[in-house]
Amino acid sequence: MRIALGIEYDGRGFSGWQRQTGTRTVQECLEKALSKVADAPVNLVCAGRTDAGVHAVGQVAHFDAQVLRSLRSWVLGANANLPGEISVQWASEVDETFHARFSALSRRYRYVILNRWVRPGLLRGKVTWQHAPLDLTPMREAASHLVGRHDFSSYRALACQAKSPIRTVHSIVLTREDDCLYLDIHANAFLHHMVRNIAGVLIAIGKGEQTADWSREILEYRDRTRGGVTAPGDGLYFVHAEYPDVYSLPQPSRPPRF
Amino acid sequence: MRIALGIEYDGRGFSGWQRQTGTRTVQECLEKALSKVADAPVNLVCAGRTDAGVHAVGQVAHFDAQVLRSLRSWVLGANANLPGEISVQWASEVDETFHARFSALSRRYRYVILNRWVRPGLLRGKVTWQHAPLDLTPMREAASHLVGRHDFSSYRALACQAKSPIRTVHSIVLTREDDCLYLDIHANAFLHHMVRNIAGVLIAIGKGEQTADWSREILEYRDRTRGGVTAPGDGLYFVHAEYPDVYSLPQPSRPPRF
Repeated sequence: MRIALGIEYDGRGFSGWQRQTGTRTVQECLEKALSKVADAPVNLVCAGRTDAGVHAVGQVAHFDAQVLRSLRSWVLGANANLPGEISVQWASEVDETFHARFSALSRRYRYVILNRWVRPGLLRGKVTWQHAPLDLTPMREAASHLVGRHDFSSYRALACQAKSPIRTVHSIVLTREDDCLYLDIHANAFLHHMVRNIAGVLIAIGKGEQTADWSREILEYRDRTRGGVTAPGDGLYFVHAEYPDVYSLPQPSRPPRF
Repeated sequence: MRIALGIEYDGRGFSGWQRQTGTRTVQECLEKALSKVADAPVNLVCAGRTDAGVHAVGQVAHFDAQVLRSLRSWVLGANANLPGEISVQWASEVDETFHARFSALSRRYRYVILNRWVRPGLLRGKVTWQHAPLDLTPMREAASHLVGRHDFSSYRALACQAKSPIRTVHSIVLTREDDCLYLDIHANAFLHHMVRNIAGVLIAIGKGEQTADWSREILEYRDRTRGGVTAPGDGLYFVHAEYPDVYSLPQPSRPPRF
């Protein structure tokens, strides 16, 4: 029986999602916790492998269970065995055609920038701090150059292992509420560091260090070595993965706001 | 020269505000940081001494400086020497009639309850979790019984050292946004554990364990041993202290929301 899970986590204490020998990862903690509930090894596949320090409110993952447990038991049993920074939000039975990574139609990330002259205290690790005032107008113009189907080679990490650098960005929306600036990106899929590289470029433009056209110039280079700075992971949240309606997964999580 | 400060902190790693030998407190960290900037010992007085684990977005404190520093230097110098969970938001010069505790006309606290069936992951330590659905209608009725000038003996900690148990609650407002419930209390001043004891009583009423009249019955006992449960400190925030306009302090901080 295949089970899909909705998961939230504070990524600060983890070396990202993916299991790695000798380091604490979200995947490893979840697999251990679920293995206790299943009384057997569990292997998880997720919708979007987040980097070290990156958070999630709506990560989706699946596994194949050899034992029968109620959906409630998977959620409560996992949470009882997980560290406090990870919480399973729901479990849903899906047929074997479902794959957390390959069935996902699109993903949404939110990047949160605390834009004020003093550093965060309460929200440390949950937001990226920018003390210089950011001007939304050129940032929005710059963002518009990235919407559509493009070769994002300049916006992916050198270590990125994806076969193709082509991705389709459906929308990039920038909003400000009080001293928080929210950058919401919706795309079919993301390359390694793609959101953080886009955020780094937009921040430089918002500070007036570069003009709004810079985001397009970088895109056209198709060369990461000519790209911008990678923004920190602190403010990045995996918000949601969209799947075909046939799987009847629960409603998406609300993006974080502060 | 007397300086007033606005301060925010995540209270999780601290044994509360007040300096105590052998334990890490917010006051001690701030005094150490400011002493480095002043190059001399600094003694702080605050508007509201928060308990262990309690947060603040708008704590106010004052100290007397023997050296001349710009207001900007006090803020940036303190923040450079403070742990990441504490951040000074502003500094303002005030005359010697100002006293962070005695000049305060009123204080505001917010208590945040995450009300959903699964425990928090991302917001661990920032909210109090209640898995049972809370009904706002009786909670609001119960809260209305506490508004006004009353003897709050039943709602203060046994260890409370205040001379008088009389306090004036100006308002208690309960709102729900998605799965967060916000309890906003505005009063001239608060007794030790007063907000958490009120929250504990309102939560029991919201769960249906008690009727809305219970908050008044407890109030009338004037006896803490007949009071309710003290709700956890995780969801509690010192939001704001109001002072006479003559001191021209900066605008109040926005209450936290999630």
